[in-house]
Amino acid sequence: MAEGSDDIQALIAAMARLPGLGPRSARRLVLSLLARNSGQMSQLATLMAKVASTAQPCARCNNLSDREICAICADPARATGEICVVEDVADLWALERGRAFRGRYHVLGGTLSALDDVGPADLGIPRLLSRIEDEAVTEVILALNATIEGQTTAHYIADALPEALTVTGLAQGVPIGGELDYLDDGTITAALRARRRF
Amino acid sequence: MAEGSDDIQALIAAMARLPGLGPRSARRLVLSLLARNSGQMSQLATLMAKVASTAQPCARCNNLSDREICAICADPARATGEICVVEDVADLWALERGRAFRGRYHVLGGTLSALDDVGPADLGIPRLLSRIEDEAVTEVILALNATIEGQTTAHYIADALPEALTVTGLAQGVPIGGELDYLDDGTITAALRARRRF
Repeated sequence: MAEGSDDIQALIAAMARLPGLGPRSARRLVLSLLARNSGQMSQLATLMAKVASTAQPCARCNNLSDREICAICADPARATGEICVVEDVADLWALERGRAFRGRYHVLGGTLSALDDVGPADLGIPRLLSRIEDEAVTEVILALNATIEGQTTAHYIADALPEALTVTGLAQGVPIGGELDYLDDGTITAALRARRRF
Repeated sequence: MAEGSDDIQALIAAMARLPGLGPRSARRLVLSLLARNSGQMSQLATLMAKVASTAQPCARCNNLSDREICAICADPARATGEICVVEDVADLWALERGRAFRGRYHVLGGTLSALDDVGPADLGIPRLLSRIEDEAVTEVILALNATIEGQTTAHYIADALPEALTVTGLAQGVPIGGELDYLDDGTITAALRARRRF
């Protein structure tokens, strides 16, 4: 038993399996949380237990929330008739940090995949279609990742949406602060094709 | 409220303050733990609460343990008369992973520092001296970090130890797998000075 006790070893092993962590950083985290009898470990445990027991997907948009309907869906000021479709909750959070979008979201929770047996129903696409009627949606923004899977899913959704709807996607081009020299060829080509008047 | 709920935001903020993590990796960890309703978050919370309530420093050597006397101090096979002095528990774990040392440890929990008001008693040095009598110690290995603070503390301890005792330090030189080209000048000089017959 190299690391203190069976429980400590189990905790390190559990943390080492988390994304972005490994055995070394897990050991460092555990020792830091236990350092100086600060009670940090038990505080974090309490907070995690609370989040684990309350966190649930929003019944309407699949966003992560502590209520049946998330704060964004429940906010009447955000009934702008715009729905932004994202792959996962992390993308929703990223868009919210930008503070540019004031409508509502629809979180797919993944992309269509024949290999992994993920169909439209698994991504809540039928629910999205029914929301478009219920919430008088006029524009759907397909903010999916610029990957093959994301764009395939975006095309599928665009085809499934009613004709009358405005369907848009995020602009592609040079990121703010980006240097051309470091950009991949595909992005440069896309930015050049989508060039606009200065 | 960009991130789900107040509790989720508090959890992300708490995790982002941990060493080696930041807001981005904390968000990723929280979402990964909540993904697919796997119960991972509550399992980790339970494990952390258990460790937080049982972890304590060994009354003899200051190692992290879940008992008053740690497994190493309680193991009669490790009463070899050798005590290895280390700065912190992470160093003890590193030595245990090496499986080369079969004696006991003494964890200082830091280094001497006039600036931070850390004196010999804070590092358990009087306790180390009384252990040397109680446990019939014949050799003390000063395995402190090769930093100025570590080496200053090592010299202080070496001076305080009884004359009859063998006091050793870790060998300094080229790390296994190390390339000379990438080593700092100090290490190369130390390795050359301490050269040995092939």
